[in-house]
Amino acid sequence: MSEETQTASEMVLRPVGIVRSEIKEPILKPDSDDPELQREFVDARKKVRKMRDKVAELVIDEELEGILDGIEDFSHILVLFWPHLIPDEKRSSLVRVHPMGRKEFPLVGIFSTCSPVRPNPVLATVVRLVERNGNLLKVTGLDAVDGSPIIDIKPYAPGFYPSEGMRTPEWMEQIQKEFS
Amino acid sequence: MSEETQTASEMVLRPVGIVRSEIKEPILKPDSDDPELQREFVDARKKVRKMRDKVAELVIDEELEGILDGIEDFSHILVLFWPHLIPDEKRSSLVRVHPMGRKEFPLVGIFSTCSPVRPNPVLATVVRLVERNGNLLKVTGLDAVDGSPIIDIKPYAPGFYPSEGMRTPEWMEQIQKEFS
Repeated sequence: MSEETQTASEMVLRPVGIVRSEIKEPILKPDSDDPELQREFVDARKKVRKMRDKVAELVIDEELEGILDGIEDFSHILVLFWPHLIPDEKRSSLVRVHPMGRKEFPLVGIFSTCSPVRPNPVLATVVRLVERNGNLLKVTGLDAVDGSPIIDIKPYAPGFYPSEGMRTPEWMEQIQKEFS
Repeated sequence: MSEETQTASEMVLRPVGIVRSEIKEPILKPDSDDPELQREFVDARKKVRKMRDKVAELVIDEELEGILDGIEDFSHILVLFWPHLIPDEKRSSLVRVHPMGRKEFPLVGIFSTCSPVRPNPVLATVVRLVERNGNLLKVTGLDAVDGSPIIDIKPYAPGFYPSEGMRTPEWMEQIQKEFS
């Protein structure tokens, strides 16, 4: 078996847990041609602001007992999850989008955006860890839909995430400003 | 088909590109019982420091043309990649480790560490984007081994990564200090 074949066959993810959240559907629809998207964005912004302090639960498989040990010593964690409500066919066909579906923003490649519609939709969000109870984590700031499979949890150590001297395009600065 | 079955069958990743790097083997071996690990750690630290300014290449599949458009406006990006040299059997059996294989650090769950040996080994590293040439990105700060399949590339927007008010355990502060 060639290395390439072997690798491809190994890149299968199994859920390590599930998200329990008040968010019941994707905040922004994946269809960039939707004429309603502009109005939806305003709603999305409100929703994101609203859910920022809402507690979501990460329910980790009980058979992985011990895998969370020590996580309570971190105030923040990085959660990788799968946007299970995004249809498969969308993510293979979309290459460029207007960020957040807003036509006033330039058309850019998917890899320049945080769009959930991407070839491998592994979404990454830093959240605040409020509490651990055994295999259950309570967090705030998670933008995952209820029922999303959890792929991974990593400690958030600010030393590995630079905070100064970044350069980002204007549209991203605009988005960050509006969502902050 | 139940939602669960459907989800599980969809969580298959396909490489969107490949890493070209001077790093030819994992910096730290996955075996936490290795008596040599302590010495290896010192080597690892040197290696990590050394490679920090080394340029690695992210070669993105040409059939995804356009997916990188606009990425050059970001100084930093988040790279998700797969540690393809870690044996599969390791990642299903390991639950707790001493961080970096150092016995003076407490035994903690895999999710409290950045160990490449984890149930779903999707590794995430913020790197500096030095240059884009079509489907080729030159970056510094990438800790991926040559040949690692690239899973995803995301823009790094510091507004989404908190930089103040974090709490991390002592052992993590120690690691961050030693690697900085």
